[in-house]
Amino acid sequence: MSACSMLVLLLHICCCFALCRRPPKLREISWLLFVFFSSDIEISRAQSPKAVDVLAKEIGLLTDEVEIYGQTKAKVRLSLLERLKDQPDGKYVLVAGITPTPLGEGKSTVTIGLVQALTAHLNINSFACLRQPSQGPTFGVKGGAAGGGYAQVIPMEEFNLHLTGDIHAITAANNLLAAAIDARILHENTQSDKALYNRLVPVVNGVRGFSAIQLARLRRLGISKTDPGTLTEEEINKFARLDIDPSTITWQRVVDTNDRFLRKITVGQANTEKGFVRQAQFDIAVASEIMAILALTTSLQDMKERLGKMVVANDKKGEPITAEDLGVTGALAVLMKDAIKPTLMQTLEGTPVFVHAGPFANIAHGNSSVLADKIALKLVGEKGFVVTEAGFGADIGMEKFFNIKCRASGLVPSVVVLVATVRALKMHGGGPNVTAGAPLKKEYTEENLQLVADGCCNLQKQIQITQLFGVPVVVALNVFKTDSPAEIDLVCKIAKQSGAFDAVPCNHWSAGGRGAVKLAQAVERAANQKNNFKYLYSLELPIVEKIRIIAQKVYGAQDIELSPTAQSQVDRYTRQGFGNLPICMAKTHLSLSHQPERKGVPTGFILPISDVRASIGAGFIYPLVGTMSTMPGLPTRPCFYDIDLDPITEQVKGLF
Amino acid sequence: MSACSMLVLLLHICCCFALCRRPPKLREISWLLFVFFSSDIEISRAQSPKAVDVLAKEIGLLTDEVEIYGQTKAKVRLSLLERLKDQPDGKYVLVAGITPTPLGEGKSTVTIGLVQALTAHLNINSFACLRQPSQGPTFGVKGGAAGGGYAQVIPMEEFNLHLTGDIHAITAANNLLAAAIDARILHENTQSDKALYNRLVPVVNGVRGFSAIQLARLRRLGISKTDPGTLTEEEINKFARLDIDPSTITWQRVVDTNDRFLRKITVGQANTEKGFVRQAQFDIAVASEIMAILALTTSLQDMKERLGKMVVANDKKGEPITAEDLGVTGALAVLMKDAIKPTLMQTLEGTPVFVHAGPFANIAHGNSSVLADKIALKLVGEKGFVVTEAGFGADIGMEKFFNIKCRASGLVPSVVVLVATVRALKMHGGGPNVTAGAPLKKEYTEENLQLVADGCCNLQKQIQITQLFGVPVVVALNVFKTDSPAEIDLVCKIAKQSGAFDAVPCNHWSAGGRGAVKLAQAVERAANQKNNFKYLYSLELPIVEKIRIIAQKVYGAQDIELSPTAQSQVDRYTRQGFGNLPICMAKTHLSLSHQPERKGVPTGFILPISDVRASIGAGFIYPLVGTMSTMPGLPTRPCFYDIDLDPITEQVKGLF
Repeated sequence: MSACSMLVLLLHICCCFALCRRPPKLREISWLLFVFFSSDIEISRAQSPKAVDVLAKEIGLLTDEVEIYGQTKAKVRLSLLERLKDQPDGKYVLVAGITPTPLGEGKSTVTIGLVQALTAHLNINSFACLRQPSQGPTFGVKGGAAGGGYAQVIPMEEFNLHLTGDIHAITAANNLLAAAIDARILHENTQSDKALYNRLVPVVNGVRGFSAIQLARLRRLGISKTDPGTLTEEEINKFARLDIDPSTITWQRVVDTNDRFLRKITVGQANTEKGFVRQAQFDIAVASEIMAILALTTSLQDMKERLGKMVVANDKKGEPITAEDLGVTGALAVLMKDAIKPTLMQTLEGTPVFVHAGPFANIAHGNSSVLADKIALKLVGEKGFVVTEAGFGADIGMEKFFNIKCRASGLVPSVVVLVATVRALKMHGGGPNVTAGAPLKKEYTEENLQLVADGCCNLQKQIQITQLFGVPVVVALNVFKTDSPAEIDLVCKIAKQSGAFDAVPCNHWSAGGRGAVKLAQAVERAANQKNNFKYLYSLELPIVEKIRIIAQKVYGAQDIELSPTAQSQVDRYTRQGFGNLPICMAKTHLSLSHQPERKGVPTGFILPISDVRASIGAGFIYPLVGTMSTMPGLPTRPCFYDIDLDPITEQVKGLF
Repeated sequence: MSACSMLVLLLHICCCFALCRRPPKLREISWLLFVFFSSDIEISRAQSPKAVDVLAKEIGLLTDEVEIYGQTKAKVRLSLLERLKDQPDGKYVLVAGITPTPLGEGKSTVTIGLVQALTAHLNINSFACLRQPSQGPTFGVKGGAAGGGYAQVIPMEEFNLHLTGDIHAITAANNLLAAAIDARILHENTQSDKALYNRLVPVVNGVRGFSAIQLARLRRLGISKTDPGTLTEEEINKFARLDIDPSTITWQRVVDTNDRFLRKITVGQANTEKGFVRQAQFDIAVASEIMAILALTTSLQDMKERLGKMVVANDKKGEPITAEDLGVTGALAVLMKDAIKPTLMQTLEGTPVFVHAGPFANIAHGNSSVLADKIALKLVGEKGFVVTEAGFGADIGMEKFFNIKCRASGLVPSVVVLVATVRALKMHGGGPNVTAGAPLKKEYTEENLQLVADGCCNLQKQIQITQLFGVPVVVALNVFKTDSPAEIDLVCKIAKQSGAFDAVPCNHWSAGGRGAVKLAQAVERAANQKNNFKYLYSLELPIVEKIRIIAQKVYGAQDIELSPTAQSQVDRYTRQGFGNLPICMAKTHLSLSHQPERKGVPTGFILPISDVRASIGAGFIYPLVGTMSTMPGLPTRPCFYDIDLDPITEQVKGLF
């Protein structure tokens, strides 16, 4: 315990004094001491989670709706949706944020603090729905991602490691499809039509027949025959050759590891692949389209259809090639059959949490699953609350939540909680750079009302963005120990002046649910407000027009500008019949504009669209605003230097 | 139902007649009809598994020793070994095989049939310990691997798919280490000693300290300092630079997918990697050394030590670089903390099965885990039986079982069951080629006593190999519907003449445990024989001498011949202090020699050793006899064409 941290502790106790207008009790002080000198994993471990079957019973799950995974995790079967289909949904709360610093502003802790307040302190049924974090960053720069302090999901090591295997299932499915693409190109290039056909439709035990997925392909090709012996040579050619153009392959392999050396690779260099080398890449597993599908799907049938529709390349005539064309839809669905069930865990205060899906917030939509939200909305009942979280700032995560996720689910959100911090607002007001790993400058640790006041423009703008969708917004100011009471009051005042239904300081990190009770009360009141929820654009508009609406109305851009590549992709997708999909912008989260260094509320910029891609199975078009990294790297000293396992107690050390 | 299969069914009924010396009962006929027209997955599904918590209770597990994974799988905690440490072990039975055809001769079905017979029919406690199959081949050529017919592990789709995530954990751990190697080379190449050291040992909250794993590295370097500020420039250089020689990297990335285009690749081609490209490869996940460690480890502490000792490359001075040097031991152990617990499942007749680890049978030792065997031996009690399986023929899998696995575990096997088929014996007797996917030639479907008699030389040789180790051997003839009674009698007669304790025809595939009762009785009697178990060679012998003993005594080679590469590797490992490890031969399983086309008992050959590699963490040296593929491919028509998921019933179709 350094002199420095002792000083900060004393400061913190004084702040408590100032905020609560009374001396802190002894119990509080000793508890503060514990908070102060404990890492997230120590706090997590200090609280024994209740057995997950007990939790499942508490929230009204039937025995055959639960699949237990160890003592603290369970998968919940989708059959529950059928059983409770006539039950009215609870209130649906989205937690979004202002434009963050690279350190993040605490949306996950607010989400967890809020449900802890609702359920453990106000006796209102509630559920938090969170994204499953990628394992890559856990061992790279970032460490764990289960909330933090006294607003955590426990056990945090389970949350941050394999969980119930969903990301591993995605990796397996994604890579089976990738392997199928290259193997198919090889086999087509090295065989005659006849040989190819004979292998694709072999004689088995004296009988020759098409498999179900082959019959479906024949139907798509307009061939109504079912006897393999009757196809003409031309039909055999059409059926057996996908004629994939290797230069158009958009399907990449994935690993859930930060492996920068896989960002660009050449595959197929062994002799057995006969010279069919090509350049390819690995993405981090959560960037797989299959993850986006898992997050947006509404049933097993729907997931299977989406998996089949995924476009992986074009053929040499420019027509899309799908997973279904490769004959792999059923196998992908089989690999994903358990991943589709949300995982039940609990907060530090024993309230229920669903952890399910975690699509990339840049090239995908960055929201947890529709299915977890739907199941949770049934479980909490009409007066209960489901709190779900959108990645990045409200300009990205929330916009996608409304225009993509709510469209897929048909659900109507009741309230948006917009998370702000004094730290991020000061940055928007002109404070110095904030970088991960480097100590914060004094502007962030000392009171500076001017920086706060100037930076509130970003908060105001994000409130206005929320209002575009007609949903009431409550600002949650995530209080840090260095925030002064005057700074806190100022933010809340400006937030309310800017149209927020309410603005509340929150101390859930240090106080758990008790620190978010006022937020919970504000959210409850806001949920009873009139709700005018609407999407921002109609799907029928041309792709370019939809992009322009988001750029202008949400980001505040003057206009957009498409590169020739982007324009030709728009034309291609429109011609291929994919023009009516929603838009999933791939833009930096560190600015409302495309330039991460432009803080506050940038204006007068033209948003450059360098490329346009599509996730047809997930169901969106994603324009690239600049380059997006889809594979993080390991730094010189990765987190894993501190991670260890005690072989006697079996406890994990060093996750934080 | 084709006329052809109807005919075969009638034949089968006639055989029954002949074998049982009585007419089949009506119940048997209808049941035969079901067997005959059902795939493995249909048979698996026709039997509802009992709830795994019920099974766990039946076999004497305490509640806190079991971690349930869904309805049909559970992990068993290692604490059980401590609780039952004074309980005597049961009998330990190894199932091995003669040199197989490429179709496999049914070691898994014999293993399962045998425990079904022991427990469900003879009321003797027993446990089967099986390898977890790779998911790659499940979607490639081979289909599932849970036994077959009425000797299966159920549910077979769980067995063949993600199971409890162990292989996924291995993939994650393996690839974290791979990413760490390349990232470290990049960071060392682009930074000065000082910059590197400052990043490796940063100031955190005003304090600068070494992590535990860095202190351990300092100690290995002979530096006893603990204050980062006091290291000399030379010590900083020694500590901060691993100086990995990229051309010596032996650690490969893995995926659990048959992805042939990853057999040889170039990594690091993105600009961010600054030109540090190199050639690399992906192996199938089960080929990872971490899988071999999982199979051989005896505790969490032992696993952690083995993980740290894994050698991944040499430095520029030719000294070994380990996972521990890269600072990643703890993180690997954390990723593997659940994988170390064996998974409990059940046979079709409700008897217990452990599924745990599945190392490659060529570059690794191809045996399921030591821990599963140890736990099972305690659970069955002194009079019970644990039946475990070795991959490939007895010349490979069994030799490695004795010399590597039994050395690691200290366990003494009681009986070897040697599986033979009339089909494989006919092949060894000069029958035509047997290839996967092609129909069998008539020599294999019609009686041919001469081919059988001639082929029994292979069976005789494998019996002799078993006798080298001093363990009694029972031959299990896995009966196919086309085998004639005379062929069956002939095999059993020759087997007994060749020194087998007994030889028994088995019908477990079509009759379950009932079809293996005679085998079970023979095994029980054999287990009471005098046992003179001994290893084949002493670890103290030089590496080359150990290879020669295996080649001559087991394979029947005249001598061995090392390539210059192999010899220099032997010299290097000896110099590095790894000369006292056991040997894990990487040789084809399709012949006793190195030439797969040489059937029967080849003689007069010189075994060529092309290269010698080492798995230091797993604890063996593996000489390569020819090239070994470590990445299977997808054929033109992979199994996945037939695999599907019914979205309503959630049932998997097409796995077999």
